Amino acid sequence: MSENNIELSNENFIEEILNPRSICVFGANNNLMTTMGSMQLRNIIAGGGFNGNIFPVHPRLEKVQGIQAYQSIFDIPIIPDLAFIILPTRIVPQVMEECGQKGVKHLIITSGGFRETGSEGKELSKQIDKIAKKYDMRFIGPNCLGVYNGWYGYPDKRDAYFNTFWIYLPHKRGNISIISQSGTVAAQTAFYTNDLGIKIGKSISVGNERNIDLVDVLRYFKDDHLTEVIGLYIEEIKQGKEFIKLAKATTPYKPIVAIYAGGTQAAARSIMSHTGSISADNKIYEAVFKETGIISTNSIKDFLYYLRTLSQAQSYKVFPKGNRIGIITDSGGPGAMMTKSAELYGLEIPEFSTELQLEFKKDIPKTASSVNPIDITFHENFMNMFIKFPKLLMKSHEVDAVIVFGVYDFDDIMNVIEKSGMKLDENMKNMKDIFEKIVLKSIKRLMKKYSIPVFFAGPYPYRYPWMQKFIEHDIPIFSMWDDITKCLSILCRYAEYRKNLNPKFKN
Amino acid sequence: MSENNIELSNENFIEEILNPRSICVFGANNNLMTTMGSMQLRNIIAGGGFNGNIFPVHPRLEKVQGIQAYQSIFDIPIIPDLAFIILPTRIVPQVMEECGQKGVKHLIITSGGFRETGSEGKELSKQIDKIAKKYDMRFIGPNCLGVYNGWYGYPDKRDAYFNTFWIYLPHKRGNISIISQSGTVAAQTAFYTNDLGIKIGKSISVGNERNIDLVDVLRYFKDDHLTEVIGLYIEEIKQGKEFIKLAKATTPYKPIVAIYAGGTQAAARSIMSHTGSISADNKIYEAVFKETGIISTNSIKDFLYYLRTLSQAQSYKVFPKGNRIGIITDSGGPGAMMTKSAELYGLEIPEFSTELQLEFKKDIPKTASSVNPIDITFHENFMNMFIKFPKLLMKSHEVDAVIVFGVYDFDDIMNVIEKSGMKLDENMKNMKDIFEKIVLKSIKRLMKKYSIPVFFAGPYPYRYPWMQKFIEHDIPIFSMWDDITKCLSILCRYAEYRKNLNPKFKN
Repeated sequence: MSENNIELSNENFIEEILNPRSICVFGANNNLMTTMGSMQLRNIIAGGGFNGNIFPVHPRLEKVQGIQAYQSIFDIPIIPDLAFIILPTRIVPQVMEECGQKGVKHLIITSGGFRETGSEGKELSKQIDKIAKKYDMRFIGPNCLGVYNGWYGYPDKRDAYFNTFWIYLPHKRGNISIISQSGTVAAQTAFYTNDLGIKIGKSISVGNERNIDLVDVLRYFKDDHLTEVIGLYIEEIKQGKEFIKLAKATTPYKPIVAIYAGGTQAAARSIMSHTGSISADNKIYEAVFKETGIISTNSIKDFLYYLRTLSQAQSYKVFPKGNRIGIITDSGGPGAMMTKSAELYGLEIPEFSTELQLEFKKDIPKTASSVNPIDITFHENFMNMFIKFPKLLMKSHEVDAVIVFGVYDFDDIMNVIEKSGMKLDENMKNMKDIFEKIVLKSIKRLMKKYSIPVFFAGPYPYRYPWMQKFIEHDIPIFSMWDDITKCLSILCRYAEYRKNLNPKFKN
Repeated sequence: MSENNIELSNENFIEEILNPRSICVFGANNNLMTTMGSMQLRNIIAGGGFNGNIFPVHPRLEKVQGIQAYQSIFDIPIIPDLAFIILPTRIVPQVMEECGQKGVKHLIITSGGFRETGSEGKELSKQIDKIAKKYDMRFIGPNCLGVYNGWYGYPDKRDAYFNTFWIYLPHKRGNISIISQSGTVAAQTAFYTNDLGIKIGKSISVGNERNIDLVDVLRYFKDDHLTEVIGLYIEEIKQGKEFIKLAKATTPYKPIVAIYAGGTQAAARSIMSHTGSISADNKIYEAVFKETGIISTNSIKDFLYYLRTLSQAQSYKVFPKGNRIGIITDSGGPGAMMTKSAELYGLEIPEFSTELQLEFKKDIPKTASSVNPIDITFHENFMNMFIKFPKLLMKSHEVDAVIVFGVYDFDDIMNVIEKSGMKLDENMKNMKDIFEKIVLKSIKRLMKKYSIPVFFAGPYPYRYPWMQKFIEHDIPIFSMWDDITKCLSILCRYAEYRKNLNPKFKN
């Protein structure tokens, strides 16, 4: 062993795979357009954490992507912490054998063509099992994209990440960790998560799970202090009993959201050719999710939305104490629709007390409603809508969570107004800064003070700057008004679940 | 009567309100920030269709937004085709009376505070009814935003629109028409519809429906040759029997998608304070929707997605002949999830014939699946994925619709690659143009030739340029993979419904 990995131990194999200090890469070259491995190496380099400890292995090239390459792993001067392999299936065992001889203990095998493609693949699978056993190696894959670790080397390395996915855009790091039997769910979701402010710190594409499986990773995330919410994409669970035990022990402390992609006939066929898994009846999985307190969905968007909701609640430590929702809106239609959907999701929209209504009536036009939803109509008063009214609701003890619908991109509006010839004063032009300084910061403080979450929404797509302002500040914001009640219902349900099972929050 | 509106007749009152050649506006000034009416006038001007025939009425100002203002309607030199009123509630009857005396036959009354706010409002409502009757006037509202007509003056005026909403961004015009008892659903959805390519030609916010109601407008859209798909936001239906009759006569020719916002206890309360309507039990509406073939949803996003799906089918005249779906993907996870959701929505993902599978096998790697979904894995061949494979499926007679998942923003990818130091040849750099010229145009042609719809999807948000490329070409494109199967199931269901009831498509 070199001094490089003297203190390695296979007890912490996932931590080691997520935080290698050196890596050798098989199957990358200089053509980033056509070979996936080249793109993956590019992304490893872009993570910026390695200080030159990357060792491409290539039979012919002297340099790969500007880095000195080696003809064989035996030429590398140290024992790399991790080997990354994306080579044609049939040569994988040979390369693994060499890694074993060199002393490499951890691997990511991206190559496909093992279990999911019939008898030859199965034979090769057995070979790699044997080699791993012989050399006491642990590996992720085959048929996976590997890992993304936004917390690479943390806290020593503050801005580095470790990304072996072929997707160049890393997730923005946060307290969400993903375990996925689909590389796409682990990686290609980054465009979406970044736009919506869904902060994923660690994401692991486990592929065929020949050596390290979902349950192994779940065990690691259960005790990982950087993980507060867990997302699972499941096609099959190998260690069923262990999964149930582990999930039950995790959910009272860290919520788990899961997609189960199997359960229908054609889905089973599709899964067989994807990871080679045998999927089971939907009802079995539904029962498991219920027993373990796992929140499940068939929708990728809901999956990511739920993760964001729980992630923000965990990081603010703000969970609703009941399911009574107060709605403040400038718009009757969304108000009515949110009220209906909230009720359908099991939330309560209580009528406010006369005293509370009188408080609101002081500040809204006669034609507006103060009952719940409070519909302030077009009478947009910034401070009322975003601070005073939410605060009144928080103090009232009449609701457990607040929805504010009426976020507009005022810069966009003012732009239009200015172009139309009206002169705007400086205060108006600086509205975004004022909004940021006063509204967003106060809301965060109030949420924590009263322990009541406030969810915001507006009719703009997320790309608009004022929507992004909320996202930057990690304040729950929703484009349109469908998802807000769904997410609140998930949050209320989880808060209730936790209250019953987590000793810290028991009544 | 002036020569201006000599051929007006109240039989065509909605057409007249959507296409006025002159308009007088009550309640607008120069402050676009705080008065809604000023913003509405600004938007009427921005529509560009009036050539100066806008007459602001204002007691003090000489000019409003650069246009000569009049102290009284009696000072206006012609009889305006339309009066637009956004004034305090109690002076509305007086102004209406003056409009009547002047000879104005059509009005939009935006002012709120009538039915929805108790006895005084009810009294005022009766007054405006009386005045309308006295002068044979028809009006939209009160408590509405008015109308958007993307087809204003068409075909004579090619680029004009008529927009009385306070939202400055007009919808992109197309064959969808909206009738909404919520101004927000009619207007504030424009940010979203424009990003997603949902083309709304006409949108009417009917408000309290004191004079013109949803059924009146539905009757108009039924025979309007610019309307091919209809969207309804409903809190209450006043002419129930007539609605059912009309909807039944419409849906075999023009699909209707509806949101019913009432039906739960708190929703009923919310609606009462919004438009003053009394909502009814959900089950009643469900039965009406079923009987009339109306597609219903509680989600605003689904509402808009369904409208887009049906709009594209109507404009291409391409409807699936059955519910067998073929899926081409580069990604096992989305493939499995789409397969599952398709089955849950009642679609079929048939296993392809051996012959067809052999065709695919020629062009995909050994590790890939050819069964259905076809999972081409990372082996992205542009032409195969987007043209050759869809065409093979279309020709096969084995499917009725095709899904292609794997749209990436290749410009974004190439940008990353170039920045990483790899030199790209010109062909690659021009990929977007090639894609546009060859792929998008061919796909449109093939869809029409085989009468089989092809739906595309990718992991990017809509804001990315390659997603927008599809939208520009009006080709079904979806961000992420949830909504694609849902929309296809709606399309297949509607195609089947139409086949049974529309003589032109009967088997």
